[in-house]
Amino acid sequence: MNYKERAKALVAQMTLAEKCAQMRYDAPAIERLNVPAYNWWNECLHGVARSGAATVFPQSIAMAASFNPQLMEQVAVCISDEARAKYNEYRKFGDTQIYQGLTCWSPNINIFRDPRWGRGHETYGEDPLLTGVMGAAFIKGLQGDDSRHRKLDATIKHYAVHSGPEGKRHSFDAVVNEKDLWETYLFAFKYCIDHADPSAVMGAYNRINGEPACGSKTYLKETLYQKLGFKGYVVSDCGAICDFDQHHRVTETPIESAALAVNNGCTLNCGDTYKWLKAAVAEGLISEETITEAVEKLFEARFRLGMFDEDCVYNSIPYDVVECSRHQEINKAMADESIVLLKNDGILPLDNTKNIAVIGPNADDKSILLANYNGTPTEYYTLLRGILEASKGKVLYAKGCHIFDDEIHSWQEQPLREALIAVQKSDAVVMVMGLNPSMEGEEGDAYNGANSGDKSDIELPKTQLKLLREVKKIGKPIVFVNVSGSCVNLTEADTECNAVVQVFYPGAMGGKAVADMLFGVTNPSGGLPVTFYAGTDDLPDFEDYSMDNRTYQYFRGKPLYPFGYGLSYTEFRINVKSSSLKGVEAVVKNIGNYDGKCLVKVYVREKGNSRLNRRLAGFSKVFVPRGEEAAVNIALSRDVLSLFEDSSRLEIIVE
Amino acid sequence: MNYKERAKALVAQMTLAEKCAQMRYDAPAIERLNVPAYNWWNECLHGVARSGAATVFPQSIAMAASFNPQLMEQVAVCISDEARAKYNEYRKFGDTQIYQGLTCWSPNINIFRDPRWGRGHETYGEDPLLTGVMGAAFIKGLQGDDSRHRKLDATIKHYAVHSGPEGKRHSFDAVVNEKDLWETYLFAFKYCIDHADPSAVMGAYNRINGEPACGSKTYLKETLYQKLGFKGYVVSDCGAICDFDQHHRVTETPIESAALAVNNGCTLNCGDTYKWLKAAVAEGLISEETITEAVEKLFEARFRLGMFDEDCVYNSIPYDVVECSRHQEINKAMADESIVLLKNDGILPLDNTKNIAVIGPNADDKSILLANYNGTPTEYYTLLRGILEASKGKVLYAKGCHIFDDEIHSWQEQPLREALIAVQKSDAVVMVMGLNPSMEGEEGDAYNGANSGDKSDIELPKTQLKLLREVKKIGKPIVFVNVSGSCVNLTEADTECNAVVQVFYPGAMGGKAVADMLFGVTNPSGGLPVTFYAGTDDLPDFEDYSMDNRTYQYFRGKPLYPFGYGLSYTEFRINVKSSSLKGVEAVVKNIGNYDGKCLVKVYVREKGNSRLNRRLAGFSKVFVPRGEEAAVNIALSRDVLSLFEDSSRLEIIVE
Repeated sequence: MNYKERAKALVAQMTLAEKCAQMRYDAPAIERLNVPAYNWWNECLHGVARSGAATVFPQSIAMAASFNPQLMEQVAVCISDEARAKYNEYRKFGDTQIYQGLTCWSPNINIFRDPRWGRGHETYGEDPLLTGVMGAAFIKGLQGDDSRHRKLDATIKHYAVHSGPEGKRHSFDAVVNEKDLWETYLFAFKYCIDHADPSAVMGAYNRINGEPACGSKTYLKETLYQKLGFKGYVVSDCGAICDFDQHHRVTETPIESAALAVNNGCTLNCGDTYKWLKAAVAEGLISEETITEAVEKLFEARFRLGMFDEDCVYNSIPYDVVECSRHQEINKAMADESIVLLKNDGILPLDNTKNIAVIGPNADDKSILLANYNGTPTEYYTLLRGILEASKGKVLYAKGCHIFDDEIHSWQEQPLREALIAVQKSDAVVMVMGLNPSMEGEEGDAYNGANSGDKSDIELPKTQLKLLREVKKIGKPIVFVNVSGSCVNLTEADTECNAVVQVFYPGAMGGKAVADMLFGVTNPSGGLPVTFYAGTDDLPDFEDYSMDNRTYQYFRGKPLYPFGYGLSYTEFRINVKSSSLKGVEAVVKNIGNYDGKCLVKVYVREKGNSRLNRRLAGFSKVFVPRGEEAAVNIALSRDVLSLFEDSSRLEIIVE
Repeated sequence: MNYKERAKALVAQMTLAEKCAQMRYDAPAIERLNVPAYNWWNECLHGVARSGAATVFPQSIAMAASFNPQLMEQVAVCISDEARAKYNEYRKFGDTQIYQGLTCWSPNINIFRDPRWGRGHETYGEDPLLTGVMGAAFIKGLQGDDSRHRKLDATIKHYAVHSGPEGKRHSFDAVVNEKDLWETYLFAFKYCIDHADPSAVMGAYNRINGEPACGSKTYLKETLYQKLGFKGYVVSDCGAICDFDQHHRVTETPIESAALAVNNGCTLNCGDTYKWLKAAVAEGLISEETITEAVEKLFEARFRLGMFDEDCVYNSIPYDVVECSRHQEINKAMADESIVLLKNDGILPLDNTKNIAVIGPNADDKSILLANYNGTPTEYYTLLRGILEASKGKVLYAKGCHIFDDEIHSWQEQPLREALIAVQKSDAVVMVMGLNPSMEGEEGDAYNGANSGDKSDIELPKTQLKLLREVKKIGKPIVFVNVSGSCVNLTEADTECNAVVQVFYPGAMGGKAVADMLFGVTNPSGGLPVTFYAGTDDLPDFEDYSMDNRTYQYFRGKPLYPFGYGLSYTEFRINVKSSSLKGVEAVVKNIGNYDGKCLVKVYVREKGNSRLNRRLAGFSKVFVPRGEEAAVNIALSRDVLSLFEDSSRLEIIVE
């Protein structure tokens, strides 16, 4: 029997009440059928999360900046190894608790359409193709390649048109036109379904054009299942079903909410609204057959994961893989490739025998390594620690200011003067500034209560700008390292500093990676996965889901640093040999003084389309030793090309 | 002219208003007299505090556990070098802000009479002689030995009879009898004044037998100045003068409060109540002469510190001393000697090739290294990091539980299971448990709002006991490392674990020191500076300042671990050669297998005195290589002996 048949046979023995209970994320045991309890909720956004020790890779936005899907897949293989190793141990205790299972509610493939969204750093940025490619690589690494069993279930989220505001997410109606829906918001969902077959989709909290995402006939039943051909199961975001009657007010009762969700294909409930399903059957709002089909899907997934088989190949993954040295090496490699060099007047790489002042509130902060949805690394390197261990000169550290609070009471430490002394005593200054995950995050997580985790603007906190200006007056060369999960206005840093480096939340090896990059042990190769705007005034209304004037595709202004931008210590020359809609053949020559990886991007532009600037259609990263050259072939994404009605109007840009 | 004469000559040129302003901690400049502004408030409890990078030594209670006043004086020399180095740099900027000056409001020599007092870890414990000896060593190291200038002003605090409750400190009346006052509460103040000549005394917030400490005729004017012969200046605790009329209600107006304080010898005001002094003169509550004398004292101190001299020897201390390697070595040595081994069934020292599970909420917490009134270390070792770097086996880390919160929501990480897996995979377990500075601290600093920083009991948090019990069930050998600044009831740890180690907040090198101790690179030699009681029920009413039934001197019950207790990896035999009230001569033989330091304590007991168990009269720590012996001569403290009317009734105990 295949998994579908085994599921059918098992579910056929269940009562209606038992079936309804199996549709809750915390599904109880059915002892007479030898079905153990199972908690479907697990997370592995950038490493096994909330389950103790784990390799903590760079946050998603940072991994997107690597533009390296091959490395991304390796990362995901490490993650699924660690998740399986943990599952195997938990099973020995008979444990079936939260964050112990095989069904991971990752990745987040929403489009980071506005830099103010607090959860934007969980995504792969603003480009649909980059998001799709990185998402698909991640899913493949999670789900494995065994012919019999799936390694983990990946869950693409949040379906759909979901990117803030956090504070309104339980009642928000995201109004979107068809063009933006397909070109931007659904693109990566379709891409991942077509190319990586994710087991699951998580429905979003918000409504889409009036229909709640987790119970939408138009967007769930008719779009996800029918148009996109999705074959897996759908889990609701946590509490999203009770939002129908309590906040969206599209239903009157939780009974109606449960029925609406399941009737439109929301298979599993994170929350407890599905306890009303039995009543919904009694009231005639849903058929038992629909419930049976949903439960069959869930058990098909559990069978496919090998939960009921003793011969699953993944059962032998040992606990030793957790944080093993190989995983740490891959983690470091990803952190290396995620760093984006934005400006360099030649000060970088730094001479590691010089005395360096390391200044700023993010220099010795562990939280910026971890971002959110993270595990607990046993060993980790803050940027300060990384620089300390790599430097042969003296390192003078001073925090300089609070990360955002500019009020200093008369009895409190005055951190500015200390920082200026350190600067004065140094040959060069590394300022480690930016945001932290308490300033941008999920509703309920982040400090900025008024915004529920969203940012009110994209400016550097005033207290940091003051510190920069005072440090600048001392007159030493400054490397400005901005740590954040999103675009920050770096205009002043760009003007005032000798070098500017963007570090997205870089994971447990972050400090080592940044130090190696600063001292030239590694050569930066990351590119921006989001536009870096020159100010908050450049942004449209946060609540407007039109893509007009948003992201590099549609922005009508001039960004400070564009999407895809990123410098190297070496110089590359790209010679395009041939270029057509089938693909680009080019030779990349390294004419600089360092070995390095070159990120080649291929965009298409549509003649006569004044709305669209250009759109990424392919990319590749190639290593070229100095003085040497390498051939690169980049196929243009058919998923992208198919968005354009008349391909003869397309122009190709290689850079 | 000597400093007194220079001060007199300068102050003679000041108007009354100018003089009154100089009595505030934030004294303004008097430009026509070339007097720069000066902020008197600086802190250096266990390293230069609140002024950025500094060597962060173990917290005071930990340094007391070393029972090593010679090492303590070395620590204080490091601290005063760093404070001077910083002062020299700040001066170049013309800075005169808080935490930049030469007048340090350290040490805290209050008696840690009750383990619930949140600030107890700032002290040297419960014994008056140990407190006096460690305090005097600290003062000497701070104030320097230059014949012309004082290096720093040390300030002994809080005078007097001050040890909680924190929440009531602004209105509390500490009621004390004469015997306890002199034998316990004033002993260390007298000892430090007699043996180390501290420049300053800080008055306490509380009243003593009805009189506010900072304005007490009986205890300030007649006792501190007249009976104890103190010649320096007195600074009020911050806001303590306004407490007179606002909270103690012993005066009607701030004008009366200011007058009462200065008339009884409170020279300097931390706060702003002395702005009323001019009005107090106008109202006839205080004479200008009294004010003049106070200001002369303050300027004598500033002259003595070399603030107005260019040839001060300390002006040349370079900034390089801050966190220099020599200071780190002394820091490590102090951390080594501050660790107290309480139980060892032979499991310690651990074999560093074995796999070790490091479990507990304090394992990777930086805050427990720093305690309070601390600087910012550039490099620091959590206990986890220390063990990781010292171990040659695998280290499995799991937090296991929150430090105190036992509520885990359904969507939160369940840290227990992860810990049990780590334990199961290990050869031995190091549990790093206890308290942190958010659970015991100063009013306004600590989390436990209801208690304003005090502890409500001495028990381990329930969530930690649960973790211990679950770990125990796995059956691996357990080393229980309790980190706290005070006595915690370790009864269950003592019963259930193979070894128990007390680590008082150990400073930036704490993790290295603990790892070296666990693996036998060092041999523990600390002794408890406080009694470790077997439960909260053993404690008298917290607000009762009678010493009856408190501390090892008067406690009528059986402690879990007594004052002075501490094991070694080796075995010492102490042969007393002679013993009299003049002193004890003994030979210490190391008959064990490790080199080590032996802490020899000499107590006196008074025949027929049923109230007093015994009292420390001398101690010495001596290094003895294994198989060798060393002579030790311990003079009995005359300060202690003089407390007993009939010395013929005294018995001497050596241990």
